[in-house]
Amino acid sequence: MTSSHPLGRRLWVIAEGYIPALSNGPAPEMTSHEAFCVLNSGDRPAHLNVTIFYETRDPVGPYRCEVPARRTKHFRFNELRDPEPIPLGTPYASVIESDQPVVVQHTRLDSRQAENALLSTIAFPAGDG
Amino acid sequence: MTSSHPLGRRLWVIAEGYIPALSNGPAPEMTSHEAFCVLNSGDRPAHLNVTIFYETRDPVGPYRCEVPARRTKHFRFNELRDPEPIPLGTPYASVIESDQPVVVQHTRLDSRQAENALLSTIAFPAGDG
Amino acid sequence: MTSSHPLGRRLWVIAEGYIPALSNGPAPEMTSHEAFCVLNSGDRPAHLNVTIFYETRDPVGPYRCEVPARRTKHFRFNELRDPEPIPLGTPYASVIESDQPVVVQHTRLDSRQAENALLSTIAFPAGDG
Amino acid sequence: MTSSHPLGRRLWVIAEGYIPALSNGPAPEMTSHEAFCVLNSGDRPAHLNVTIFYETRDPVGPYRCEVPARRTKHFRFNELRDPEPIPLGTPYASVIESDQPVVVQHTRLDSRQAENALLSTIAFPAGDG
Repeated sequence: MTSSHPLGRRLWVIAEGYIPALSNGPAPEMTSHEAFCVLNSGDRPAHLNVTIFYETRDPVGPYRCEVPARRTKHFRFNELRDPEPIPLGTPYASVIESDQPVVVQHTRLDSRQAENALLSTIAFPAGDG
Repeated sequence: MTSSHPLGRRLWVIAEGYIPALSNGPAPEMTSHEAFCVLNSGDRPAHLNVTIFYETRDPVGPYRCEVPARRTKHFRFNELRDPEPIPLGTPYASVIESDQPVVVQHTRLDSRQAENALLSTIAFPAGDG
Repeated sequence: MTSSHPLGRRLWVIAEGYIPALSNGPAPEMTSHEAFCVLNSGDRPAHLNVTIFYETRDPVGPYRCEVPARRTKHFRFNELRDPEPIPLGTPYASVIESDQPVVVQHTRLDSRQAENALLSTIAFPAGDG
Repeated sequence: MTSSHPLGRRLWVIAEGYIPALSNGPAPEMTSHEAFCVLNSGDRPAHLNVTIFYETRDPVGPYRCEVPARRTKHFRFNELRDPEPIPLGTPYASVIESDQPVVVQHTRLDSRQAENALLSTIAFPAGDG
């Protein structure tokens, strides 16, 4: 692989978002959380703007994140703080825009009950990259 | 992001559908359910027509839903009522048509046993949006 | 929706296949299983040829299945019999060809341990439909 | 199906990677693991180069793997050894390049707690195959 080749797209959508309000097990590993995992395979830093959509109020954002060149970053939605935290137990959706092509995957660990459950899917690539 | 930009497609398919008949844990959060989560990132309301396909009888629908402009909505299949509820414990599939581009993600929480299990996938975008 | 419109593609791939050899819970619902769920939204029956690929021997197939017009069918890989059953506890992959456009989704319920786990993903659409 | 027809793409991305550091249950079946499952439906061997990306250091690779003609292989990330093992409990991402078209699916079995959890998704096809 040409290590500097940036793979992926610049615009991604995760339609399902929900951070469980309860957790079981040792934090932070087993804390219920929802993540968007980003790969920036190119040789320039990727600057992300994340917008959070809700059911009953206006979108909030942008949340600004950065993924350095040739790095991956696993961001937890429950750790976003600026402009405001995402409330727990509330349906949301997210749009992730990047100035460089990246690949985004969505994962949730739900530990509301004693045993954790997992889900994951590649996000929807909405743009032509 | 230009907040008024509608992302996604107008036609989505979820080939796997099954609402477990049993649940464990406090309702409604831990009730076994299956959801289709929709993001409408555009500035016009999206009107959805959902058609449910079965193994041994004709399709039922349309179920009509609406997602306001710049909102997400997480619909539970088990809460659809008109024209008729989806029977529990029965395989089905769904086609979701929208008059605006949207993104659709499919999720199930299965709490038939004491600990819940989760699955999720971006639905299949069948149309060209 | 024009009810007779066939949605999807004619060629699908599921690269991950594995039927757990053990189960817990009442059969058949809680038997560990792996399924391919097919929607045929069109007005002609879809005839499927399924080929199973293994790690250490030649592919086996075709397994022939049919999905009537405007129906869904949830097929369990562990119920395929002709030309031969798929062995349990063995990695495999599958290619699903249809003479009509369909949509295919892959699901596994794993009940080897006391609580079931689930996975699902839309299969990979390999053809242009 | 023309059995020699190679399906899929030559470049795949899995943005989410994490091998849980703990396991419960009998090894190797219930050992926490993360796999990339590859189908090579064509009649030539597929040679894969896997590159692993990290959050805080340079990418490592290529890891070289081969999938014989008309075979599937389920590779566990935790069994990769050359040039070096992937550390447990560490976020990573992977890029999988093949000299033949293949299909790649990502799966994790997490048995950190007493009951296992599963996730799976078709990887992101970054190239045009």
